[in-house]
Amino acid sequence: MPREADALALQTGAAVRRAARAGVLRGATAGLAPGYIQGNLAILPARDADDFRRFCALNPKPCPLIGVGAPGVPTVSALGADLDLRTDLPGYRVWRDGALVDEPDDVRGWWRDDLTAFVIGCSFSFEAALLAAGIPLRHIALGCNVAMYRTNIACVPAGRFAGPMVVSMRPLRSRDVARAVEITGRVPGAHGAPVHVGAPEAIGIADLAQPDYGDAIAPAPDEVPVFWACGVTPQVAIGVARPDLAITHAPGKMLVTDLVADPLAV
Amino acid sequence: MPREADALALQTGAAVRRAARAGVLRGATAGLAPGYIQGNLAILPARDADDFRRFCALNPKPCPLIGVGAPGVPTVSALGADLDLRTDLPGYRVWRDGALVDEPDDVRGWWRDDLTAFVIGCSFSFEAALLAAGIPLRHIALGCNVAMYRTNIACVPAGRFAGPMVVSMRPLRSRDVARAVEITGRVPGAHGAPVHVGAPEAIGIADLAQPDYGDAIAPAPDEVPVFWACGVTPQVAIGVARPDLAITHAPGKMLVTDLVADPLAV
Repeated sequence: MPREADALALQTGAAVRRAARAGVLRGATAGLAPGYIQGNLAILPARDADDFRRFCALNPKPCPLIGVGAPGVPTVSALGADLDLRTDLPGYRVWRDGALVDEPDDVRGWWRDDLTAFVIGCSFSFEAALLAAGIPLRHIALGCNVAMYRTNIACVPAGRFAGPMVVSMRPLRSRDVARAVEITGRVPGAHGAPVHVGAPEAIGIADLAQPDYGDAIAPAPDEVPVFWACGVTPQVAIGVARPDLAITHAPGKMLVTDLVADPLAV
Repeated sequence: MPREADALALQTGAAVRRAARAGVLRGATAGLAPGYIQGNLAILPARDADDFRRFCALNPKPCPLIGVGAPGVPTVSALGADLDLRTDLPGYRVWRDGALVDEPDDVRGWWRDDLTAFVIGCSFSFEAALLAAGIPLRHIALGCNVAMYRTNIACVPAGRFAGPMVVSMRPLRSRDVARAVEITGRVPGAHGAPVHVGAPEAIGIADLAQPDYGDAIAPAPDEVPVFWACGVTPQVAIGVARPDLAITHAPGKMLVTDLVADPLAV
């Protein structure tokens, strides 16, 4: 029976991956292995890989690629010494023709020789940098998820991959906004600087209280809604492209790498 | 009779200073010698100089010191080869015990052996960088002055120098805010990144339509008011300190230096 993640004392990326591989970690990875970079996983057939790679290159803010595997090889050695992408995440989602068909604990049974793995940076790295700089984040204080919205900003399409940019919104105190921009601008591998500050309607968000994903948090009177490009964007693009098979991490259950966040970013 | 500044084709800091010295330039320096860094001038008696220098060091965002002269020496060689601070600006203001007593074209008659010159960076440098990056600035498009406000942010006092931080406000499109922060953050000698974004009331500004200095510009629905520390702050502190003599540039009639703005800032 899985123990509590806290009790596992998972202080490194390797420890998190081993715990997931052994079946003792099945929960979300937020807060685990502090300082280690986490990533979104997207695994696609070889026939779609070139287009998806190009989609990421053309849309670096929502899709900052931090690692790409070789066809049929379920590892990215630059991200972890003993990494096996089929077993080392706490949970997966499997999609056929754009529809969710399975939510397994490992994907060895779904693996194919033509699958190519993509790892995309995630916002956990920049949130740690913001907190270290003394900038409070409401969703962390409240213990809820960040609010995410589909926008009217179109991603640059590549082959069948296309769709709107999804953004995450964090209400920040007005005096913290500029510092938050400078800090997150130094971590382009974690979505970088915000894409939009204030004026939600200008990017097609009619009502901040109704996010498309995650939990709504209303900005206080002295706060401004600050919008970052979000790693849900590539999942929307995969939904548009409808590849015959796709494997992603389950929400919140990220790949934890051996990479350590740049201390200069803090 | 002074010719038009435009007709003088003043393309370098040295050319602007020579024209002011010769009495043919008496107008504002905005737009002259593009790419050359301009500065605010503050000249104070030696007995106040240490406190003022400390005030600037403690409040680097409103008072970024880019040059300091030696007592009694009306030049700062690092800022201009042949610079004479008594004659090289198009206009001056002279203050006794905090009260404006003269607005001369040169201050050779006011010079004393105990006067120390301070040159403080100005926002013209970062505005040029913003425009070069394609970020429109409403006050420049409208041909009016930027709006400035006294805030409830207290400067760190030094000796008799104290007072509120004055900020300038530029309405920016929401999509330009983050880039504007990154660009201006690279020019700390021109006030650096904004101190506040949105929520004017949080820094004691009750009504954006009523600036304390300059011209009001209302943000459009897709714009956010962005506040930078402003070079008027040291003038307010001088008004609080009431030195027996102080000499400053006249509004808009800056010292144009030989320094060229860092192209990396653009």
